[in-house]
Amino acid sequence: MSKPVCAVVGVGPGNGASFARKFASEGYAVALLARNKDTLKELEEQIPGSKAFVYDVTAAEKAGETFERIKAEMGPVEVLVYNAGSGMFGSIDDTTPEAFESSWRVNALGCLACAKQVLPDMRKAKGGNIIVIGATASLRGGANFAAFASAKAAQRSLVQSMARHLGSDRIHVSYVIIDGVIDLERTRQMMPDKPDEYFLQPDHIAESVFLLTRQPPSAWTFELDLRPFGENW
Amino acid sequence: MSKPVCAVVGVGPGNGASFARKFASEGYAVALLARNKDTLKELEEQIPGSKAFVYDVTAAEKAGETFERIKAEMGPVEVLVYNAGSGMFGSIDDTTPEAFESSWRVNALGCLACAKQVLPDMRKAKGGNIIVIGATASLRGGANFAAFASAKAAQRSLVQSMARHLGSDRIHVSYVIIDGVIDLERTRQMMPDKPDEYFLQPDHIAESVFLLTRQPPSAWTFELDLRPFGENW
Amino acid sequence: MSKPVCAVVGVGPGNGASFARKFASEGYAVALLARNKDTLKELEEQIPGSKAFVYDVTAAEKAGETFERIKAEMGPVEVLVYNAGSGMFGSIDDTTPEAFESSWRVNALGCLACAKQVLPDMRKAKGGNIIVIGATASLRGGANFAAFASAKAAQRSLVQSMARHLGSDRIHVSYVIIDGVIDLERTRQMMPDKPDEYFLQPDHIAESVFLLTRQPPSAWTFELDLRPFGENW
Amino acid sequence: MSKPVCAVVGVGPGNGASFARKFASEGYAVALLARNKDTLKELEEQIPGSKAFVYDVTAAEKAGETFERIKAEMGPVEVLVYNAGSGMFGSIDDTTPEAFESSWRVNALGCLACAKQVLPDMRKAKGGNIIVIGATASLRGGANFAAFASAKAAQRSLVQSMARHLGSDRIHVSYVIIDGVIDLERTRQMMPDKPDEYFLQPDHIAESVFLLTRQPPSAWTFELDLRPFGENW
Repeated sequence: MSKPVCAVVGVGPGNGASFARKFASEGYAVALLARNKDTLKELEEQIPGSKAFVYDVTAAEKAGETFERIKAEMGPVEVLVYNAGSGMFGSIDDTTPEAFESSWRVNALGCLACAKQVLPDMRKAKGGNIIVIGATASLRGGANFAAFASAKAAQRSLVQSMARHLGSDRIHVSYVIIDGVIDLERTRQMMPDKPDEYFLQPDHIAESVFLLTRQPPSAWTFELDLRPFGENW
Repeated sequence: MSKPVCAVVGVGPGNGASFARKFASEGYAVALLARNKDTLKELEEQIPGSKAFVYDVTAAEKAGETFERIKAEMGPVEVLVYNAGSGMFGSIDDTTPEAFESSWRVNALGCLACAKQVLPDMRKAKGGNIIVIGATASLRGGANFAAFASAKAAQRSLVQSMARHLGSDRIHVSYVIIDGVIDLERTRQMMPDKPDEYFLQPDHIAESVFLLTRQPPSAWTFELDLRPFGENW
Repeated sequence: MSKPVCAVVGVGPGNGASFARKFASEGYAVALLARNKDTLKELEEQIPGSKAFVYDVTAAEKAGETFERIKAEMGPVEVLVYNAGSGMFGSIDDTTPEAFESSWRVNALGCLACAKQVLPDMRKAKGGNIIVIGATASLRGGANFAAFASAKAAQRSLVQSMARHLGSDRIHVSYVIIDGVIDLERTRQMMPDKPDEYFLQPDHIAESVFLLTRQPPSAWTFELDLRPFGENW
Repeated sequence: MSKPVCAVVGVGPGNGASFARKFASEGYAVALLARNKDTLKELEEQIPGSKAFVYDVTAAEKAGETFERIKAEMGPVEVLVYNAGSGMFGSIDDTTPEAFESSWRVNALGCLACAKQVLPDMRKAKGGNIIVIGATASLRGGANFAAFASAKAAQRSLVQSMARHLGSDRIHVSYVIIDGVIDLERTRQMMPDKPDEYFLQPDHIAESVFLLTRQPPSAWTFELDLRPFGENW
């Protein structure tokens, strides 16, 4: 229990796994949170000192007990990485109120619920890091992103509000804007003709995410955009 | 039933009443939607040719039957003004998940639900207007606006997505950014020392909102900010 | 000399001519400013009560004498429309320091110079309108707009600063963001295959520009975007 | 001549000196560029392997010969840090065309001129880094920042255009948004009552600036904001 604790919410085969590995390699005990028990188990076995917690971010009312278990089993959270985020596409015609709500629950409400759980201990510790993984859609409501863009805009606004409010408590809140396609088995299959360099590497994203937690408080970053060098933006 | 129909969602004593009066005076039959039966009745009596419909925007699942009644009693909606929006204040510490959700339901989900109801008839008519009343908070997550700013950002993103998607169907979607305090009994009591010119006049807001519906399709505005001349912004 | 005076800087065959005609039809004496004597003469003959003034906006040092002549011959300016703006394209590789400077002189420095000339009389009159015609490029530095986007960004920032500073003097400063291609002989020749509805009509732009000067001071717009309904944005 | 070369344009006692020291400590030969010979000499003596070049960024026409000397004496530039930027304050009333122009020359034209000098060698080397030090004023035209905000907006737009254009050549272009007051003898004298933690530390800024040059090309940052934890933003 003497290692600092990093909780990664929304670990899958891409960014989440890379965040977990990176923080583990830098000396953190990593709490892995996701809906899918099998993915979690596999990662838990791969990453030394990590622990899996089954958690569905859309069930915001269960955030309390989940984070209590993390605290009891691992210690107070020093770094929270909120990586949950679903990429539902479609225009307003394609978007049911249910889909619209689900997107918002994953990206915005779930983020609020987790953040509220870690604040008391971060305040006690007189510091901490909250990093939320966003997307370019947070900045622009594209025609075919009615649900996803709106949910990400809600998320970014919330995180900005948190950053402004929590800075003076030395809690460093950041928002990472991923601009491009992440290198995953799934995305490679969808775009088999794209060259390697078209894709964002999760390990490289994790590198920059980790460095945010190392910035001295006199020069903190709130928003960090990340894209592949050849991206057309 | 030969007058064009304008539906104002969220009519209260301020902007909503002014929108209703303005569109009525320009020859529209106005459907008045709000939760509060008494406010609605009073307005219905004041505004010739208007009709009141009790509707709670947070009950998105009732949008269908409400708009069917409007259509049956008044005709297809040509102009939708979405004015619902609650101003809950507070930082993340003050914001429960319930309050965060309620704010989003009023501002974002309710807007989606109403917009989806009017699209089929607007498409049949080969045109229409959807105007959503936003706020500066949609652009900036202030420390003490965790719920309101996030909900307004979600709203603005959705409306932008709608504007991009619906333009080619000649449905003109606009977002009005109110930047300042509206002149209401309530706001005057909260700020008794402010001069008249500190406040936005609802009738003046209504003037610009109405003119959006008169723009020819070769030069449409999506976003319109409105503030008093002396506002410090 | 009893008509209110509107000065349009940068009148050519497109927007500038439409602004001049619109304000003339609404009862203004219109001062026409441009480099090209022949264009000016033609417009002066077409528009009753207008007067031509040869003026090169890049020669900021001549703004004083030009606006003194306008005042002497027509009266103090009540509405200034700054429409000068050149569309130089190209990446940093294509952009010489000279071209970069020239673009900035037309869009930003020339705007400052003209605005400074009309402020004293607007203050004396306890009101006035300054409208600057911008472009989407003011919001985004595209790869092939190194000079134009930078000049427009400089212009927009200046105009925003003016709006904030001059509001309390009841001088209404607005920025119009044209998003699309204007219908001109030149643009039609460049894009012969585009349908009519692809283009922004200068007369429709002029309509919205004029209405900005009619907004009551309790609800002023700073930024107004205008685009054709079918624009892909 | 075998060390990689970093050129810092605009070295003074604050950020510039810290950038120079940081890159020198990481193995770079540092070219120091500034107007003031005495400041330069002092730094040159303090920083091993650095070389001073007297250069006035407003004399864009001299960029060619200055960068040729750097190349001849030190080798091709691998990292360019453009730190020149003057903080002229005042509203449009306080801003002469000359002051407006001077601000733009330092921040925007000077940046273009230096960037154009280093591009050929970066392309030959199939990579390089250009980092431009900006400010919050680049995003917002405040009432009392008519010249400074406009110049910084012009700079940011140019740098964004460069980033988009040069990415595919593996030239990483970034813009750093300093949001707050830098810790300098001068700023301490101006604000003697502020606590230490009010100020941005130049060495901490330099840390993040250096790390931008270490990002792998699959996940590059364009814009990085930096502010003290207690900043009210």
